[in-house]
Amino acid sequence: MKIVVFGLGALGTAFATFLKESGHTVYGITKIEYEPLLKNKTLKVSGIWGNHEAKLDGIYSSVEKIKDDIDVVFLTVKSYDTEKAVQQIKSIVGENTLVVVAQNGYGNYETVSSVIGKEHTLLARVIFGSKVIKPGEVEITVNADDVRIGDPSKTIPEEKILKVACLIKHSGIPASYDPDVYKTLWDKILYNCALNPLGALLECSYGTLASIEETREVMDSIIDEIFLVTEKHNIQLNWENPQEYKKHFYENLIPPTKEHFPSMYHDIKAGKKIEIDALNGAIVRLAKEKGLKVPTNETITKLIKAKEKIKRGKFKR
Amino acid sequence: MKIVVFGLGALGTAFATFLKESGHTVYGITKIEYEPLLKNKTLKVSGIWGNHEAKLDGIYSSVEKIKDDIDVVFLTVKSYDTEKAVQQIKSIVGENTLVVVAQNGYGNYETVSSVIGKEHTLLARVIFGSKVIKPGEVEITVNADDVRIGDPSKTIPEEKILKVACLIKHSGIPASYDPDVYKTLWDKILYNCALNPLGALLECSYGTLASIEETREVMDSIIDEIFLVTEKHNIQLNWENPQEYKKHFYENLIPPTKEHFPSMYHDIKAGKKIEIDALNGAIVRLAKEKGLKVPTNETITKLIKAKEKIKRGKFKR
Repeated sequence: MKIVVFGLGALGTAFATFLKESGHTVYGITKIEYEPLLKNKTLKVSGIWGNHEAKLDGIYSSVEKIKDDIDVVFLTVKSYDTEKAVQQIKSIVGENTLVVVAQNGYGNYETVSSVIGKEHTLLARVIFGSKVIKPGEVEITVNADDVRIGDPSKTIPEEKILKVACLIKHSGIPASYDPDVYKTLWDKILYNCALNPLGALLECSYGTLASIEETREVMDSIIDEIFLVTEKHNIQLNWENPQEYKKHFYENLIPPTKEHFPSMYHDIKAGKKIEIDALNGAIVRLAKEKGLKVPTNETITKLIKAKEKIKRGKFKR
Repeated sequence: MKIVVFGLGALGTAFATFLKESGHTVYGITKIEYEPLLKNKTLKVSGIWGNHEAKLDGIYSSVEKIKDDIDVVFLTVKSYDTEKAVQQIKSIVGENTLVVVAQNGYGNYETVSSVIGKEHTLLARVIFGSKVIKPGEVEITVNADDVRIGDPSKTIPEEKILKVACLIKHSGIPASYDPDVYKTLWDKILYNCALNPLGALLECSYGTLASIEETREVMDSIIDEIFLVTEKHNIQLNWENPQEYKKHFYENLIPPTKEHFPSMYHDIKAGKKIEIDALNGAIVRLAKEKGLKVPTNETITKLIKAKEKIKRGKFKR
């Protein structure tokens, strides 16, 4: 198959290395500032899935140099770069091209499918941990579940989706077809919205957040507001009501990850841009569309944006 | 005059030293754990008002040992200790005793006057900066305005209030009578509620908070909610509406203190208890009494309480 991995960060480097190693034609798209660094580099993956390396068929900062008809595009940029990325991807989407949105949070699938069409857009929920050692080299730290892949719009034939799921799985990354991938992604959104910004603001682990009455109340409020918003938008969740989710959240999800600090915590400390607009910020946008108030998500979003600006020095004094 | 200073922290040490130095009989009440350290100590004040020292007529951990009829009690404990303190003070309040509530935030005057009577309770708004060097030794760092003293209930004759104002002023601490002391205290509450918790959460200066769009929006919301709550409680402020206050806040109050980090920031870092229940936490209580929602103050209060617990290690893991 002919594949483009759009975005060679922690996730994209892992996908590109495994896919190339399994024999496909793989092109990587990276940011212009990383192009000189990466263009002749052999990508490397270490960690829980062993050591892997691969030299791609081309690493560029734009899709212009790709002349092949592309079968699958993996979109692996951060959410704040999705709109820019999809404008480029548009030009390499042919009749049979599928784009796999393999990002965090809400809004990426919606943005991509609105530009290139639902019949070309697949959604993947990725939940393994990958850490950049240096550009082009990543370590797989943990795998919580298969990459789940599916079509929220139910317009793409199952056999095509299965083919992409097999492509990933055969490359060495656990993956499976998920007819309910949209609900599955929302499970991750719920979890990330409740834990990531608070862990980043208070600089503490998931277990600490669940141990303190006040942070539990704030997380409960974040979750309640998400159920309010998704209900008004007819977004189906895996849970009947907030109580059912909270029980699962505190009893099953937190305990095994209680020592974990959110990636948002590490990213803010490192002065990186934060994907809050695809998490709690997305809840605020969805609420505004329906005239709803989600003050907890709104305050938390603003505090994260402020903390990000302070750490990056991005404000006028 | 015979005076008790109840609470020998940053503020109480300054009051006790100046009052004793100016010739009065002054007893100090301190926490039981500080009694051995302080009982024979000469209190010391340094800083912008020069060097002062005084040996009090007694430093105890309870009022039981005080046999004199007391003219004035200065209540200088932190807000979270007010209820406990007033139960002790009750026993030394005679017919002519006045208690000066010289604390931060909302609720102290209300608590004290409800226990010992409005006719015995004066309110002081203290806005000079005092820093503990070590127990019994403080440094005066800044003076924003006179100690303003008055009677919110208008039941105490003016000449008695003036006498207490003069007592303070003649001891060397700038002070004046303020018929509108309740409004004056609320000005400080507004300022502290908007700036202190955010500066403590985001670990930044007042100027930074005012420079970032998102923190301005959160501060605006905190202020709006305070106006909502005070209006429903018929609490008079110095400002017709939130817009008028915000203009004053951003244009006049912030610029001269823009480099300042809130004391709450330093206190949280030092693992101290935080007076949030007399600030944003008080707004939440006042809102609940009237069935109002103040979600921004509520979230901010919970985040500060959580941060306090994390820094103090006060939670079950």
